[in-house]
Amino acid sequence: MSFDHRKYVAFPPVRKRNRLWPDQVIQKAPTWCAVDLRDGNQALVKPMSVAQKQRLFDLLVKLGFKEIEIGFPAASQPDFEFCRKLIDENRIPGDVTIQVLTQARAELIARTFEALKGASRAVVHVYNSTSTVQREQVFGLDREGIRRIAVSGAEIVRDFAAGYPDTDWTFQYSPESFTGTELDFAVEVIDAVNDVWRPDCGQKVIINLPATVEMSTPNVFADQVEWVCDHIRYREHVSVSVHTHNDRGCAVAAAELAVMAGADRVEGTLMGNGERTGNMDLVTMAMNLYSQGVDPCLDLSGMAEITDVVEACTEIPTHPRHPYAGELVFTAFSGSHQDAIRKCLAQCDEGQAWNVAYLPINPSDVGRRYDEVVRINSQSGKGGVAYVLERDYGISLPRWLQIEFSKLVQKEAERNGGELDSDTIHGLFESCYLQVPEPWRLTSYDLHRDDQGVRAEVRIGGADEVLAGRGLGAVEAVVVAISERFGISVMVETYDEFALGKGTAANALACIRVTADGQASSAAALAEDTASATIQALLSAVARLAPARELPNEAVVGGVALA
Amino acid sequence: MSFDHRKYVAFPPVRKRNRLWPDQVIQKAPTWCAVDLRDGNQALVKPMSVAQKQRLFDLLVKLGFKEIEIGFPAASQPDFEFCRKLIDENRIPGDVTIQVLTQARAELIARTFEALKGASRAVVHVYNSTSTVQREQVFGLDREGIRRIAVSGAEIVRDFAAGYPDTDWTFQYSPESFTGTELDFAVEVIDAVNDVWRPDCGQKVIINLPATVEMSTPNVFADQVEWVCDHIRYREHVSVSVHTHNDRGCAVAAAELAVMAGADRVEGTLMGNGERTGNMDLVTMAMNLYSQGVDPCLDLSGMAEITDVVEACTEIPTHPRHPYAGELVFTAFSGSHQDAIRKCLAQCDEGQAWNVAYLPINPSDVGRRYDEVVRINSQSGKGGVAYVLERDYGISLPRWLQIEFSKLVQKEAERNGGELDSDTIHGLFESCYLQVPEPWRLTSYDLHRDDQGVRAEVRIGGADEVLAGRGLGAVEAVVVAISERFGISVMVETYDEFALGKGTAANALACIRVTADGQASSAAALAEDTASATIQALLSAVARLAPARELPNEAVVGGVALA
Repeated sequence: MSFDHRKYVAFPPVRKRNRLWPDQVIQKAPTWCAVDLRDGNQALVKPMSVAQKQRLFDLLVKLGFKEIEIGFPAASQPDFEFCRKLIDENRIPGDVTIQVLTQARAELIARTFEALKGASRAVVHVYNSTSTVQREQVFGLDREGIRRIAVSGAEIVRDFAAGYPDTDWTFQYSPESFTGTELDFAVEVIDAVNDVWRPDCGQKVIINLPATVEMSTPNVFADQVEWVCDHIRYREHVSVSVHTHNDRGCAVAAAELAVMAGADRVEGTLMGNGERTGNMDLVTMAMNLYSQGVDPCLDLSGMAEITDVVEACTEIPTHPRHPYAGELVFTAFSGSHQDAIRKCLAQCDEGQAWNVAYLPINPSDVGRRYDEVVRINSQSGKGGVAYVLERDYGISLPRWLQIEFSKLVQKEAERNGGELDSDTIHGLFESCYLQVPEPWRLTSYDLHRDDQGVRAEVRIGGADEVLAGRGLGAVEAVVVAISERFGISVMVETYDEFALGKGTAANALACIRVTADGQASSAAALAEDTASATIQALLSAVARLAPARELPNEAVVGGVALA
Repeated sequence: MSFDHRKYVAFPPVRKRNRLWPDQVIQKAPTWCAVDLRDGNQALVKPMSVAQKQRLFDLLVKLGFKEIEIGFPAASQPDFEFCRKLIDENRIPGDVTIQVLTQARAELIARTFEALKGASRAVVHVYNSTSTVQREQVFGLDREGIRRIAVSGAEIVRDFAAGYPDTDWTFQYSPESFTGTELDFAVEVIDAVNDVWRPDCGQKVIINLPATVEMSTPNVFADQVEWVCDHIRYREHVSVSVHTHNDRGCAVAAAELAVMAGADRVEGTLMGNGERTGNMDLVTMAMNLYSQGVDPCLDLSGMAEITDVVEACTEIPTHPRHPYAGELVFTAFSGSHQDAIRKCLAQCDEGQAWNVAYLPINPSDVGRRYDEVVRINSQSGKGGVAYVLERDYGISLPRWLQIEFSKLVQKEAERNGGELDSDTIHGLFESCYLQVPEPWRLTSYDLHRDDQGVRAEVRIGGADEVLAGRGLGAVEAVVVAISERFGISVMVETYDEFALGKGTAANALACIRVTADGQASSAAALAEDTASATIQALLSAVARLAPARELPNEAVVGGVALA
């Protein structure tokens, strides 16, 4: 049986004492380093062209990255050429430092310095594998042999750098496969490298701890990072960096907990592109900080541009549920979610702290709109339906009509099997509530109020049918008029009137629900004044009552039974 | 300026004392509950048809899920009908319990029990929102008002259940938006619900803690869960469940740390489908446990079927870097990765613990193959190239030729700008090394060994050119023969011979590298015996030397300069 968990061994926990990281909160952004052009590019079916690399580099600069790993020039001719192009054509802004990767071997380091010649500032990032599996199965070396590779690499880097005194060098060392390395050995190798580089004597040094393969829950990685920070010498003189991968789907969590555990710097890629399951996603981690009120020191407001460029350069699509960037992530489908969002947005003042249920950030911060993405389906409920009508047509519905209408929308969505667009919803509202049967169209009214109440005389239809009645108010007067004319006893259950925004021909909306002989009927009407809207809504509601006794012809239109 | 972090407020940490979870390791799988048919379905642009629901339900059963939330029948007619269909058509296996969601309102609970009538076992999952933002902005209620909704819901559920004594009921309560709820209030509401349900008197109860919106780093969620487990009454009588969402990209991490913090049960969906950024991905979390030697209690060996069915039902694609399931996740592009994987696989014995660099699990466990996915591009290096030739053509190259040939492959990949398939690589190997220029084709040989060494007489080409020479071995003898015949001083730098697997016409491969007049040339040959292969490789290598002095015509073929 091949699906057998027993062939795997649990990752040993660190059993750390005096663990401090779980009480930390990230208060400022780490130093970011984007490795899209190296780790990201290396893992593509179709590696980027020079033009694509330039485009992605320019985007990274625009977003605010100050450290950018641009390639592995000793291993790849295009990477070498791209590095030369950036330097020779002066394409690196003054506040940006390029970084290149190399293995800890003399000929590769030589070629690396050749690629960097003339740069005003650069990070030379040298690595060798230190994990048990790599030592035993790949290199056939013991700890001492692996330590020697690292020290020799550090020495060669130091010596080559001395030959280019005009460049401001930072040295970076990664014990590759750190997560699979015994912690004491990782510290031993790091200390040995630092003994060569002497960060205490002014050499800038980055010690990068890669989760080359994510091998445990993210708290264990945090323990590992905190352990290293506790034990390495020269701690205060080096920048501790992490570079997590996503094999267990927890690369962002691991990097966040690692920063709580002491890491100063985080490597990753936009949208998490990289070997296998990818690298830590810089967009997600930076936006997570942003959503907590921490300045991410990156400008991610142009999210659409970010995903466009990344997709064009990597040919890897953005998942529709990608945090902060996916097509669906500012969409609420559930009716109760939509209702809550609508209420919160209505109470949300400019300048106030953001506090909207189901929306961790204001979508407009990243160039998105919540109102772009309300979708109505059979699960939406009244909130979403009301929101769409209000947003797109300025129609505010009273709560009772929201409930009634949303059931019709739900039935239509179930029948249709999918999502309803705003037009369809409005069309449904019009045919169910707004449409006026011609014989019942209000053509004029006279309302006379005195201390007896209101006397109403309304004319309907082309044929100048006149209805007249008296009541305590206009609505009651028209109800009486209808009763007297057609012998039908109408009860008004509820009605609401809304003045609408200026600039439209119809300035009032009225919604009414009536019953007669145990039948219920609702209607709405738009008109230039409130009285017209209300009377028309009442007439329309009566017209929708069935069976239609002696009502004017064509009174029962193609509506929907609303009982 | 809209991209301004200052409008957000940091999530307050729990400041937990006596935190125990960071020292825990997950030793057994939690109880899984798949909510694909409810939370997942609710968030689709096009909700599933009944046929799609049935297909996904059947898959979940096949994978081993014992608890499946099948819908929100009181809110959706299709959900109601699907629930009835499962019960009426006896489609629920004996060891599977269906679960349905409902809000804590009388008419919805009534409809929910109607949907469940006749089920032999079911979980009724009732929820109401408890967070500060929902209380204040959505419901306009204080703590007491919200607590009353929960208690009333619990009472109605209890009373309805009593009316259906033939069903084995489990009650589940979720303080919806738990992550935004003050912990003491969450515990107060949970206790109040349990006071109604009395889990201590034998009623099965699940208390589900939803990260309806992911609001903090996952360690904070773990603190929240541990705090609740520490403080609720009836702890030993209830199953504590978590339901995380992925707004910060950390839903899997949050669920894992929550299980360490005491959660007994985890809700999620296959591939993480769900509202906004989605739910906790059950596949990733279960495979994470599996990779640590923990029985996931699910059979995920048919990963292709899982992604096929999920994609067909949700119309949401699987990201190529999705952990364990994505197209690219068992792919190594980097040459050093490929080299390490090749060496580890060679040392990996059946039955031994899995320990292969860069491959957290054996791809074959989930129906994938590492050898399906070695892709060769300009960054691949020698390991991948050698692996592909060996895998697809049974050609084992000596290390020196791996290095030499991989440079040619790299150049070709850079020229081509993408990935090279196995055929292209083999074609390149053939044209560069294997191809025999006709005048140099070995037609026969005679080797005579005596105590003076070996005398070789070889015939080449159609024209029966005969070369004869004497040396310490056959190779030296042929070198001498070539020198004498063509006046060229050839040095053999290195050569290797390999016996190939049986059943092919060519049973030996020889690879050779020669120099003459400062020029180097390599060639390989396949033949039925080792001597033929070696002599032919030598002849082919000489033929590739340029300029071609008095060598037979057509000797310099369309190869590549190898110096």
